Amino acid sequence: MKAQLGGDEGKHKFVLKTPKGTRDYNPKQMAIRERVFSAIITCFKRHGAEVIDTPVFELKETLTGKYGEDSKLIYDLKDQGGELLSLRYDLTVPFARYLAMNKITNIKRYHIAKDFDIAGQFDPMIPDAECLKIVHEILSDLQLGDFLIKVNDRRILDGMFAVCGVPDSKFRTICSSVDKLDKMPWEEVRSEMVGEKGLSPEAADRIGEYVQLHGGLDLIERLLQDPKLSQNKLAKEGLGDMKLLFEYLTLFGITGKISFDLSLARGLDYYTGVIFEAVLLQQENDHVEEAASVGSVAGGGRYDGLVGMFDPKGRKVPCVGVSIGIERIFSILEQRVEASEEKIRTTETQVLVASAQKKLLEERLKLISELWDAGIKAEVLYKKNPKLLNQLQYCEDTGIPLVAIVGEQELKDGVVKLRVVATREEVNVRRESLVEEIRMRTSRP
Amino acid sequence: MKAQLGGDEGKHKFVLKTPKGTRDYNPKQMAIRERVFSAIITCFKRHGAEVIDTPVFELKETLTGKYGEDSKLIYDLKDQGGELLSLRYDLTVPFARYLAMNKITNIKRYHIAKDFDIAGQFDPMIPDAECLKIVHEILSDLQLGDFLIKVNDRRILDGMFAVCGVPDSKFRTICSSVDKLDKMPWEEVRSEMVGEKGLSPEAADRIGEYVQLHGGLDLIERLLQDPKLSQNKLAKEGLGDMKLLFEYLTLFGITGKISFDLSLARGLDYYTGVIFEAVLLQQENDHVEEAASVGSVAGGGRYDGLVGMFDPKGRKVPCVGVSIGIERIFSILEQRVEASEEKIRTTETQVLVASAQKKLLEERLKLISELWDAGIKAEVLYKKNPKLLNQLQYCEDTGIPLVAIVGEQELKDGVVKLRVVATREEVNVRRESLVEEIRMRTSRP
Repeated sequence: MKAQLGGDEGKHKFVLKTPKGTRDYNPKQMAIRERVFSAIITCFKRHGAEVIDTPVFELKETLTGKYGEDSKLIYDLKDQGGELLSLRYDLTVPFARYLAMNKITNIKRYHIAKDFDIAGQFDPMIPDAECLKIVHEILSDLQLGDFLIKVNDRRILDGMFAVCGVPDSKFRTICSSVDKLDKMPWEEVRSEMVGEKGLSPEAADRIGEYVQLHGGLDLIERLLQDPKLSQNKLAKEGLGDMKLLFEYLTLFGITGKISFDLSLARGLDYYTGVIFEAVLLQQENDHVEEAASVGSVAGGGRYDGLVGMFDPKGRKVPCVGVSIGIERIFSILEQRVEASEEKIRTTETQVLVASAQKKLLEERLKLISELWDAGIKAEVLYKKNPKLLNQLQYCEDTGIPLVAIVGEQELKDGVVKLRVVATREEVNVRRESLVEEIRMRTSRP
Repeated sequence: MKAQLGGDEGKHKFVLKTPKGTRDYNPKQMAIRERVFSAIITCFKRHGAEVIDTPVFELKETLTGKYGEDSKLIYDLKDQGGELLSLRYDLTVPFARYLAMNKITNIKRYHIAKDFDIAGQFDPMIPDAECLKIVHEILSDLQLGDFLIKVNDRRILDGMFAVCGVPDSKFRTICSSVDKLDKMPWEEVRSEMVGEKGLSPEAADRIGEYVQLHGGLDLIERLLQDPKLSQNKLAKEGLGDMKLLFEYLTLFGITGKISFDLSLARGLDYYTGVIFEAVLLQQENDHVEEAASVGSVAGGGRYDGLVGMFDPKGRKVPCVGVSIGIERIFSILEQRVEASEEKIRTTETQVLVASAQKKLLEERLKLISELWDAGIKAEVLYKKNPKLLNQLQYCEDTGIPLVAIVGEQELKDGVVKLRVVATREEVNVRRESLVEEIRMRTSRP
């Protein structure tokens, strides 16, 4: 048998596991996942998004040079008949490749229930504001607890770096350091900037002052008056747009959960304008929450240059998008469900077709076939002569609310005995009314 | 820019494409795909299946030795930190790995909207019959045209090989040859058996007689009396179960589309009992159909040994499953939609929020925010001052049925002008009744 498994005469032991960094999802976990997906897709559709899909792997070249320091996390495939392939790392780069390949300049789409993007040349900040509205809607719907959406702009960051005395060539790498502020204290980030990345201590200290700032319209107004920043073209543009963004967010009524935060940097190289990240806030007096790793659950931003990197003539398609951190959201909800001992159904079965007597398998199969054909979600035990008790127990275990019981007498009378599992109530229902009766009793209020 | 793309100073030209054998799906294609997925998932849920998911790649060893001659089609990944990985090739082997790993002996589940399996020790042929019922329901629902489900049993095939004089060691490879009968004439298959695989011409000719046979209960009865087959233990078992299967299929009322066919072999090594395959039938006088490649659109069977291959103690979990050929079904429907020029909506947007005058962006954003918060699917053009004509044209192009128009007068009067795109009818609706009015006008009858 070992030879059959390993194909190498059992030289080593076979370990039964999934690859590192991957996992299976069991039915209970999938039920929670589907709630999350459903909330997200409903929101994307509410905002008029189309859906596209792209392969799970891409030419390696497609992914090269788009992610900055994250690039080393990409899985490469073996050479496949002359093609070097890699598993996709996010959905944004494949989306940009798709737009360039199909010469699409305008689209609003979502991708595998987690990424929403708006591509096209539009008046400033309207699509950007919609992306933030979407994050707000999804996090509210999922009832994950209190959250905050941090917003910044790569142009403000770059302007800030310039006025602090960071050389142009170090913008991206210093930006990567700033990005670590959510996981490291300023002192460590500062020593990375000065020690590893060779920034002058004075420049680092100037950055240190800016990245403490966060607020709303008031802070934007203040920075627009900042003697240094207001002299920098990029920063001024970014701040002007940030002000406009906040005006739209006020119309959407969501500024209460938005914070303009100068420490927000985002790791990926491809952002060019607005960037944002949603975090869950630690909840006091809630031990479950404290156990769950609290952090970024959604993020995104504007990437106006990425599609142009794929276009042979470098034609740009401005894009802004949001990606929902479904894995993190899912593990928070999973922990919460486990702590609450909430019973989660993993099927939607409305009725179990059962019998109390022997030799009625044929009658059970005939009845269940009628129910399936009428669109009723129904199950039957795969046994010739199951005990009634076992059939009822199966309903208890799996949450099936109704049992349709056939017996000799019922068959003669042209009825089926319908039992409500929760109350043990039993009624005889004429066979021709059974479908209607089951529908009525299992329709949501 | 080339340097940025290739990372190698532009030594070669970057080709904008997806990897060989893969494709993108655009919104129209995804809309058709979602119809297919929805029909399939609805059916799986109707039959009480739970859902699981497994990673897109597995340890290479997990996939090794399960597929027979198909193994060469598996994509291998590069060594990932000491782990040799491969992309999954089907969902059956990962499912078996999942069962063994989690020591699950009973489950009915589906996997990514295409694979449905029943695992567990049950009375014979009841789950097998349900799998065929599922194929019948899905193909009927999808309205793909007339179809036939061919059924056979590996035990009948093996018994047939034995009585025809095939040596035991050649069963699997001769089975692979028989599997080619749907694409090659018997003469070619015969010469492969005799020439390449070293079978005696007499044995091949005996096989040739059996594989012509197809029918229903009558054929099963006849073979149960066959002087040679009836003496073979495996064949007799298989034929007995086939008879039972047909009795259940009769109760389900689907034997009209089922054919017991001795030429059906299925390529994969892991089947041990019932096997089946659904094919679409060529339709006369239907040129569209003729263009579409007609072939297998679903298949499956019983694989009682696969889970045991993963279990350290070789414990078996009997399984039977069906896999829906979504790619083939999808391309048939895609071709049909294209030929019919049916207009397919790619979004579900109910209403466009528009204005006829300038300087009303803020009012549009306020209104659409109210609609989104009430769960209405709504869009707005991302322009400060769009022309009404362009807004109406957008509705025509994308199939949005309603336009909610805000203007100075409407704002004063506390109303919104609701326009029905199809009829050009316009009514003033009080702002507080707008959500209800939109819901009423866009609910499906």
